[in-house]
Amino acid sequence: MSLPRTAATFISPIVESRRWLEGVHFSAEQPLINVSQAAPIDPPPQGLRQAIAQAALNDDSAHLYGPVLGRLDLRTALASQISKHYAARLTSDQIAITSGCNQAFAAAIASLCGEGDEVIIPTPWYFNHKMWLDLAGVAACPLPVGAEMLPDVQHAEALITPRTRAIALVSPNNPCGTEYPAPLLRAFYELAKSRGLKLILDETYRDFDSRTGAPHDLMQSESWDHTLIHLYSFSKAYRLTGHRVGAIATSPARLSEMEKFLDTVTICPNQLGQIGALWGIENLSDWLAAERAEILDRRAAIHESFGILAERGWKLLGCGAYFAYVEHPFDAPSEQIARDLVTQSSVLMLPGSMFLPVDDPAGERQFRIAFANVDRPGITELFHRLAAVQR
Amino acid sequence: MSLPRTAATFISPIVESRRWLEGVHFSAEQPLINVSQAAPIDPPPQGLRQAIAQAALNDDSAHLYGPVLGRLDLRTALASQISKHYAARLTSDQIAITSGCNQAFAAAIASLCGEGDEVIIPTPWYFNHKMWLDLAGVAACPLPVGAEMLPDVQHAEALITPRTRAIALVSPNNPCGTEYPAPLLRAFYELAKSRGLKLILDETYRDFDSRTGAPHDLMQSESWDHTLIHLYSFSKAYRLTGHRVGAIATSPARLSEMEKFLDTVTICPNQLGQIGALWGIENLSDWLAAERAEILDRRAAIHESFGILAERGWKLLGCGAYFAYVEHPFDAPSEQIARDLVTQSSVLMLPGSMFLPVDDPAGERQFRIAFANVDRPGITELFHRLAAVQR
Repeated sequence: MSLPRTAATFISPIVESRRWLEGVHFSAEQPLINVSQAAPIDPPPQGLRQAIAQAALNDDSAHLYGPVLGRLDLRTALASQISKHYAARLTSDQIAITSGCNQAFAAAIASLCGEGDEVIIPTPWYFNHKMWLDLAGVAACPLPVGAEMLPDVQHAEALITPRTRAIALVSPNNPCGTEYPAPLLRAFYELAKSRGLKLILDETYRDFDSRTGAPHDLMQSESWDHTLIHLYSFSKAYRLTGHRVGAIATSPARLSEMEKFLDTVTICPNQLGQIGALWGIENLSDWLAAERAEILDRRAAIHESFGILAERGWKLLGCGAYFAYVEHPFDAPSEQIARDLVTQSSVLMLPGSMFLPVDDPAGERQFRIAFANVDRPGITELFHRLAAVQR
Repeated sequence: MSLPRTAATFISPIVESRRWLEGVHFSAEQPLINVSQAAPIDPPPQGLRQAIAQAALNDDSAHLYGPVLGRLDLRTALASQISKHYAARLTSDQIAITSGCNQAFAAAIASLCGEGDEVIIPTPWYFNHKMWLDLAGVAACPLPVGAEMLPDVQHAEALITPRTRAIALVSPNNPCGTEYPAPLLRAFYELAKSRGLKLILDETYRDFDSRTGAPHDLMQSESWDHTLIHLYSFSKAYRLTGHRVGAIATSPARLSEMEKFLDTVTICPNQLGQIGALWGIENLSDWLAAERAEILDRRAAIHESFGILAERGWKLLGCGAYFAYVEHPFDAPSEQIARDLVTQSSVLMLPGSMFLPVDDPAGERQFRIAFANVDRPGITELFHRLAAVQR
């Protein structure tokens, strides 16, 4: 007798960690510092809010079913924006809009994998990728990152079996913060292409990359869309988390396959979120540049302030985009420490065990700090609280 | 080697049939009558539009992640509304909000079934139910309806195997229009309960039922939520198709399992749609009553006008909610007739082959007419065009 799909996976770490907060009182002297989730806590700029409100009032199409693969104006605008960002040439038929980037990943897997197939994912992983593979009956083959928190191509090649269908990477990485070098991405692309696999590349955090220019040249290759499935989210760039708008760039033929899945699971992305995303593309590039500068400044603050933790045996393993990934010095499992941090230090951050297979001991030693919502003084305060932990 | 999930199912009939329209010119004398999709073509009332616009401007939470299972105010309001409609007592923890009712079905299946499990569904089926079962690796066991377009409980019982996990019904039915009698639903519930199965009951069209009072008494049973999984959609009631808001009512424990799936596939339902749905519950009951009266009048018009088709050998098999389900008199497969109707009669309606297994000959003889968008003169015109068809 087979288990139901949902029994094959774990509770969402975000849902689980929110439960740790229930019934806990946080004092005015030591308010909660929540670095658990990679989500803007402020709403989008006023102009975008007005654009959505105007559409709600005046645009009938905002309330009616739209195309399964998204509004043509948004697909066209994103094709143009990606073409510029990656020095490539995309057309609207290579773009689909999804109800968030998690759904983009799910659609990609549905178009690639059947029961018992395999996908290689670096560990630490983005937990929703692992959860979807569990839910889809697909085996996630862990590819542990090395000392630089980067996966190794030869190691990946050794993991390929006849059931392997794809390699799924996230860059800049969630949870590690690592920005994957362009040559490394090229090497993974060539490996995938040579072995008849797909390379799924989730670039949700591309707008907060510290490097200027195209982060890779994969979309400049001929027939890139036969191998690469690029995923993107509008949630971080324009603070649209509550609107659920993500995107996929790949071949039109593959998008047609994904259309079956997207039609059945949501019918179409909601219209107002798409209208907001389009307004963002057309109007918020300067605003987004300032957002990026702020995130990069917070990243710098993490590096500058980490000394106080390093003195106490903490290690900064990776830092970039919205995330710092750290190792703690204590002789206790990370989840226990995380729960104690809530009640004793008013800090919520996710333990490494939520990003790693249960049999990987690294999970007990690590934490992800999603620092995007914490300003410089907040980062200093966070690190002082962590430095004060005695065990 | 296993096929990818999407290769195991068919193209959405809505997407497929839209393609038939491409490149076809419809004259001003004979404009297209589109009775293919069960969707309001008008936007929601102005007050609801204003409520959404106000939230976009003034409510920060409208733009940020919300709870995976939906906003508490909407869950509470729907629990109260369902309690009143069904003379039952539901609480908010028995309700989840989803990104449309298709996703509600998908979440239910994910919480019940693994690879190779079985779900019994009456045929003709709602195609997105069949598609999701295909995508989930679950076998759809067809239960052909009888002369009244209703499924038989004894027949269903005979189809139960050790792999059966659920029976999934739609009432009022899509595509047949049939309103399932309360005793029939009770009998299916008792069968499911006695065999340790779940009864999934999709009541998307409940607001357009011709009967007054509760359409069934299932939620009045003790521990009903251990057996029944009720599905609902806000799309039809308040014309919110473009906002993607559906709902589930069942046990809190099962909703916790579904939460894993919902978190991974969309994270949360979009906020503005939920705000609109709540406004609808609180303000649109009189408006909805008038909408229902109009739909029931169109249903009456179908019955009154059908004579012109009956004379030519057509049969009205079922009629209710948004749908008439009919049999044609021609010696040709329904899909071919459907395609010819587009070019020759400027009519788009879906052939029965899209609602039935390929090996069921009934599919070639039948059509679904989604009449909700066609007024009395439009229904007369539609029937005149169909009556004029020569083959």
